[in-house]
Amino acid sequence: MSNSATERNEANPSTGRVRVESYFMSVDGYGAGPDQSLEHPLGIGGEEMTEWVTATRSWRAMHGMDGGSTGVDDSFARRGTENLGAWIIGRNMFGPIRGPWPDDKWKGWWGDNPPYHVPVYVLTHHERPPLEMEGDTTFYFVTEGIQAALAMAREAADGKDVRIGGGAETIRQFLRARLIDEMHIAITPTILGSGEPLFAELDLRRSGYEVVQFEASDKALHVVIKRTEE
Amino acid sequence: MSNSATERNEANPSTGRVRVESYFMSVDGYGAGPDQSLEHPLGIGGEEMTEWVTATRSWRAMHGMDGGSTGVDDSFARRGTENLGAWIIGRNMFGPIRGPWPDDKWKGWWGDNPPYHVPVYVLTHHERPPLEMEGDTTFYFVTEGIQAALAMAREAADGKDVRIGGGAETIRQFLRARLIDEMHIAITPTILGSGEPLFAELDLRRSGYEVVQFEASDKALHVVIKRTEE
Repeated sequence: MSNSATERNEANPSTGRVRVESYFMSVDGYGAGPDQSLEHPLGIGGEEMTEWVTATRSWRAMHGMDGGSTGVDDSFARRGTENLGAWIIGRNMFGPIRGPWPDDKWKGWWGDNPPYHVPVYVLTHHERPPLEMEGDTTFYFVTEGIQAALAMAREAADGKDVRIGGGAETIRQFLRARLIDEMHIAITPTILGSGEPLFAELDLRRSGYEVVQFEASDKALHVVIKRTEE
Repeated sequence: MSNSATERNEANPSTGRVRVESYFMSVDGYGAGPDQSLEHPLGIGGEEMTEWVTATRSWRAMHGMDGGSTGVDDSFARRGTENLGAWIIGRNMFGPIRGPWPDDKWKGWWGDNPPYHVPVYVLTHHERPPLEMEGDTTFYFVTEGIQAALAMAREAADGKDVRIGGGAETIRQFLRARLIDEMHIAITPTILGSGEPLFAELDLRRSGYEVVQFEASDKALHVVIKRTEE
């Protein structure tokens, strides 16, 4: 199987990895609940999955607050922000609007100073000029698919890692193409019942993925899977 | 929704519960891997999911061995055997033979003295006379479906609980009918890739199930879900 990301990694070990971090999943396998909207960015019930991370010291510090938990949840919250040179996110993670952009008013969920501070490539079928925000975050809208987005993100990242943000369908596209090097999932004490299934019909075993880390708090089971076969 | 099991519980709180215990699941949501067979009762890769339980003191004692781990894995291994008056298992959990019984030679995976010691109702489309084993285990073959099997098991259990053993499809049938009161799942550090998905298209949230326990060792995350709505 041809895999330019892998070849590049082998040729130049200093090239960054492609990572998924802090991806929430319910016990019944959903990355988001049903009916995602402005009020429910993670779908009905989805917010229950965020409790482990919003309680951590690292997350609170990132959002200008003191205190918070240390320990395994905090370690994973922190590592998700380390050594990142660019992000790629799906259209649904950028906002609740579907179809063509009605205007340029929607600038993401995160206000004027989004918590990325690096270039963010947004997968979309609808062109839109780049959107420069405060704090070194610029949103670029990519209409040519995941391979094109990854090429741009790698170039911008300049040797650092590229983080694939979500949602589920974006991650599934990258997993199917075997472009994810490492993925951290946080399984939370939640039953969502329906929504966006993360792993359905992917066959990650055949794609060479293995569990390399497995560690829980009382709020989340942290699992890291890694592509160990080329 | 009419639900005779629930009505009976309300009318008579001493009636046993319907429980799933120690049901293995991979991180990617499979209760068994692909290609189940005599050599691979849990499908390819499925045996990796048993490590947490075979290391416990309770499991080892049940199989005539000394030693073993204590702690959370052992607690869950032990509670799975407590207060049981009958079991219901699917045809695939009883053996690798599919279709009509060629003869009466196959007597389960477990030898002359199976680890049940109570009546076991085997769901099948093909009639077969009851099979009396050593140690008070008798296998009854039920061709009339899950409701009939549950009625027989409840009667035999005489106030104790009925355990639904598996495989995935058997548990899914009982969950769809809202007949499971409580279910313990052990999520293990395994990627199976394909096989028998446990939760796909069930909508357990709509059925009133919630997570009531969430506790991990380094070998398994133990999750208990319970039907809290009637």
